Amino acid sequence: MNSVYEGAIQDLIDELGQLPGVGPKSAQRIAFHIMEAETEDVERLRAALAAVKTRVKHCETCGNLAEGEQCSICLDPRRDQSTICVIEQAPDVQAIERTHAYRGLYHVLGGAIDPIRGIGPEQLRIRQLLARLQNSEVKEIVIATDPNIEGEATATYLARMLETMNIPTSRLALGLPVGGDLEYADEITLSRAFEGRRIM
Amino acid sequence: MNSVYEGAIQDLIDELGQLPGVGPKSAQRIAFHIMEAETEDVERLRAALAAVKTRVKHCETCGNLAEGEQCSICLDPRRDQSTICVIEQAPDVQAIERTHAYRGLYHVLGGAIDPIRGIGPEQLRIRQLLARLQNSEVKEIVIATDPNIEGEATATYLARMLETMNIPTSRLALGLPVGGDLEYADEITLSRAFEGRRIM
Repeated sequence: MNSVYEGAIQDLIDELGQLPGVGPKSAQRIAFHIMEAETEDVERLRAALAAVKTRVKHCETCGNLAEGEQCSICLDPRRDQSTICVIEQAPDVQAIERTHAYRGLYHVLGGAIDPIRGIGPEQLRIRQLLARLQNSEVKEIVIATDPNIEGEATATYLARMLETMNIPTSRLALGLPVGGDLEYADEITLSRAFEGRRIM
Repeated sequence: MNSVYEGAIQDLIDELGQLPGVGPKSAQRIAFHIMEAETEDVERLRAALAAVKTRVKHCETCGNLAEGEQCSICLDPRRDQSTICVIEQAPDVQAIERTHAYRGLYHVLGGAIDPIRGIGPEQLRIRQLLARLQNSEVKEIVIATDPNIEGEATATYLARMLETMNIPTSRLALGLPVGGDLEYADEITLSRAFEGRRIM
């Protein structure tokens, strides 16, 4: 898309276009919206951007988002301190919290093992996980890395490592998505669903 | 989507979610990107947002975007001063400029006549268009409102008004989109293409 706009509006379109998932058309649409928006609304957005940069950090214990040294989950005494769910990224915490099916703690790895991109175990927060397991009362590690090649490789690596430490480890079930249509399930998902079938 | 994030990140997700075309998932993705982005990149975005609010205005003549009192097109003496193309919104200027098929001036109405939303001719920049036509050397008005019901109604309204002023008025052609497939053209477009057919 050529830029025929003048200075400031084109600058904003360029900056917005750098954001993930914002193409040239959306960037233009947002820029025009900003131009016509109330100044106080734009100031609120600018303040929110600054606040995230200055106030939000990673929890020193689990790597989740936190505004202090620790996140609200690590600070919550009602959470089950004997279970740690290992995930790749902080947004995975929200996805799991929405299910209300888990009341334990988390550990954010910050990615998955991916030799092609040069990400090995030492680039992930695995050392910090081991530190948490020293002198702790953890009875189970639930591995909830993504159900793809990198996530599986990471899960296998962690499972082997934790086995030597005698800590029971589980992995989220793979199978047909609820509400899905068996006919449209891909072959790998379907074969995993067979492997994981349960006696009724 | 429930908000389980803490303060600042959730505030930013909420603010981003107000922008056009940004759903909850994109807002979350952008917020996480912002959190991990370089501070100077975020500051550049914040500065661009502020600059648009303080520096970009509407051209006093045509209503297009301008950083001074007039836009670069109105200020350009090489533009054909005898033709004015009437459009609904400022982004339409860019769409037409990209074609390099038009070298005249523009007039941005700021919308289209839409009785359901309570937008009549008096809410549009029609008075300003009439003011431009007084004492000017305009020889043709090209109406380029959107090819939908509101745009057509606005075009018809303008054409009747300009007829009384004896100013030649044209309307952009309606027909099959170039590169499209006749088989998939909708009935209205196809019938308009028949109506507008030209002798070869």
